[in-house]
Order: sequence, then C-alpha cells, then structure tokens
Amino acid sequence: MLKLLYEGKAKKVYQTEKEDELILSYKDDATAFNGKKKAQFVGKGRFNNLITAHVFNYLTAQGIPHHFIKTLNDTDQRVYKTTILPVEVVVRNRSSYSLNQRLSIPEKTRFSPPLVEWFYKNDDLNDPLINDQHLFLLTDVTELELAHIHALTLKINEALKDFFRQIDLDLIDFKIEFGRNSAGDIILSDEISPDTCRLEDIHTGEHLDKDVFRQGTGDLLDVYQIILSRLED
Amino acid sequence: MLKLLYEGKAKKVYQTEKEDELILSYKDDATAFNGKKKAQFVGKGRFNNLITAHVFNYLTAQGIPHHFIKTLNDTDQRVYKTTILPVEVVVRNRSSYSLNQRLSIPEKTRFSPPLVEWFYKNDDLNDPLINDQHLFLLTDVTELELAHIHALTLKINEALKDFFRQIDLDLIDFKIEFGRNSAGDIILSDEISPDTCRLEDIHTGEHLDKDVFRQGTGDLLDVYQIILSRLED
Repeated sequence: MLKLLYEGKAKKVYQTEKEDELILSYKDDATAFNGKKKAQFVGKGRFNNLITAHVFNYLTAQGIPHHFIKTLNDTDQRVYKTTILPVEVVVRNRSSYSLNQRLSIPEKTRFSPPLVEWFYKNDDLNDPLINDQHLFLLTDVTELELAHIHALTLKINEALKDFFRQIDLDLIDFKIEFGRNSAGDIILSDEISPDTCRLEDIHTGEHLDKDVFRQGTGDLLDVYQIILSRLED
Repeated sequence: MLKLLYEGKAKKVYQTEKEDELILSYKDDATAFNGKKKAQFVGKGRFNNLITAHVFNYLTAQGIPHHFIKTLNDTDQRVYKTTILPVEVVVRNRSSYSLNQRLSIPEKTRFSPPLVEWFYKNDDLNDPLINDQHLFLLTDVTELELAHIHALTLKINEALKDFFRQIDLDLIDFKIEFGRNSAGDIILSDEISPDTCRLEDIHTGEHLDKDVFRQGTGDLLDVYQIILSRLED
C-alpha cells in the first residue's frame, strides 16, 4: 500500500518505493474560481492523465527538463519527486476574459512576446499576482534561477504552441509550476492538460478546455474526449 | 482668471499664462481607500503645500529632476507641466499592514534593497499591481525609460530617507508619480507629503502621516503641524 503524501483539488500524490519518485493519481473532480465551483466528471482523471502524457512525451523530444517518467494506467503516472516552488507561472499568448477584467486589456489582444506572470500560490491570499522582487522575498528562488525559469517558460510555450497546433488548437494561455529535483535543478513539475491550458479550435474558434465548465458553456467530458481523440489519431 | 484643467481628490490644477507651467492648488480634503473614506480638514492644503515645498527644495539640492518651481502662497505652488504616466510607483523600506494583508509579509519587515511596486492608475480597476511587461502594454514607457524611472526612484528614496531622518522620522514607504515634460524627459511630478508617505517618529514609534486618518487613530491636522514645525525649526 502506497503512502498518500498529499491530496489536492485534482490529484492525489503517493510516495513510491523509490525515495525520489512519486505516483500522481488524477481525480475526476473539477474545480474553478479557487475551489468555489466544484463538480465530478467520471472519466476526467483518465483524460488528463493521458493528455498530459502525450504532452510530456513531446516536451522530452524538445529537450525540456520535466518530472514525468511514464504512464502506469488510465489515471496514474510516475514522476520524479520535486520540491514545488510556491509560484504559478502563467503565460499568455492572447488576452482572455479574466485579464480584460483585471487590466482592461481587450480580449483576444495578441502578445508578442508572450505575457508572463507570477502568482504566489496561497489559497488564503487568493493567489495574488507578484513581481520579481516579491518572488525573491517569498521564495528561495535566486536571480539566476528566475532567469532560468523565465527562459524555460518561453521555451515551453513555443513547444506547446507547436504541439497543440498539430491538432488544430491555438494555445491562448496556460499555467505551469516548477519544482527542484533531488539534484537541485529546477524542472517543470505540473500537469499540462485542458485543466491548465486555454485552447481554441483554429477552425471553429470553439473553446476546448476547462472554460466550458467554468462558464457552463459546454460538456467538459465531450471536450476533453475531442482533444484525446485528436492526439491518438 | 486661470483655467481649471483638472480637479483631483486633493488638488486643483490650473493652466498659467505660460503653456508649460501650471499652478497646483492644494485642497483641504482628505480621502482614503480609493475615495471611500472622505473628510475635510481646514488647513490641510496649506500643510501639504508647504511640506512638499520643503521636500522639493531638498530634492533640487540632490540633483533629482522634478516639476516643482516655487511656492506662490499658503496653498498654491507653481510647477512645470508634464504628461503624467498612468503608474503609481510605491517604494517600501519596511512592510506595512496593507502589504501584510496582501502577501503575508510580516509588518515591519525591513527591505534591503527597498521593494518597488508599480500600480496601474485606474480607479475603475482599483489601481491594480502590475509587472514590467504589463507596464509596457498599458503605457508608452520604453524599456530604457523604465530603467531610468527605477534608478531615479531608488535615488529619490535615499534622498527622502535622509531628509526625513533629519527631523527624526523614519520613512516606511511612499507613493510617487512621474511625468514627461515638454522636452520629453521623465521627471518626478507629484506632491510628497504625509498624504503620500508613511512616516514614523524614530523615538516614539508614532505614525505621523495620513494613516491617522485612514485608521482613525489620531488628529490629522496635529500630525501635519508637527511635521511642518520640525521642518521650520
């Protein structure tokens, strides 16, 4: 019996027999608005587990350092253990509804270079936006490491744009997290799925991501199935 | 009769007979919490006008480029006209109650180097915190200009710390704004007073600034009188 280390909104994390390897088990729960909206979608865990695996296999080929090792079954994957940095990195290729609400930047404005934002991971504080100096005060990240995170983030964005473009999706924005592995290196340590990316069909303009749940505009399982099907084609 | 160009929360701005010179007339109104708390203090305009003049005379001696020309009377001062950038620059030498609320950084934490924050001036959006990239998207400030603003801000902080230390006050934090003058140069274009600085008596630890009004802990006019008296000593 594996030891449960942590249960989050969308995943459980188990310790494996190897000290520096974990199992992530994807749950069927969907949450939005910092946990205020919740629902269960039987099969969602499988979709995110399998979609994330496709993404990481592509990122491996692009030389992006990440935590993913392999898929174990429909809902579980093996990853390297990292100490997660308390920072959500958001990358925006285009302005969204939420950015328009916050800064009055018109929706659909294209950003070149992409807009990169740091949010301090803290539910009690509602994950506030922070600048570089706040990040140094609130974490143990060094200036050199932040430059590395920024460069890696831009490289991940380019890789993900290409990846999704191959299945006719435009990557509007996404959220990722980084962690330090046992060697002290900072690597990508997060799921990458329609839970964490905003994706738009390049032909129909339809949103194929968790926004259909956030905004109640479509069936989450249908949408996630479309993405997995395109990846398996 | 001078033409009123603009009336803000704490000042009126008039056009003079010279195209690039204005008169600022300090009002007796105090506001806090983005205008939600309001009151009138007869004599406040005079205090801020005269205190700001003392500050700017010191900044002139320190070689800081600013808009101040001269005091005209108890409530009015002559300044160079600038196009104000829509950015509030906040400098923190120490953490305050509001920063603790926002980021859980304990009150009274000392920052070295000082913490510098940009806020987008927009009442409808509640003056949100922004990062450098947002600033480039929301204003016409260039990368070179931002580096200049940052360096100038740190220089102003050092000068203001020295200035207030001479009258036994510790500068906790302050807010300033910059503008472009007719030559296109970015210069300090704001009042600097107990309305815009948090100041603490180095002996008693007493707050001698607008916080006494914000938090209802003392008499605003008494406090501003103490500061002006020390400056006139």
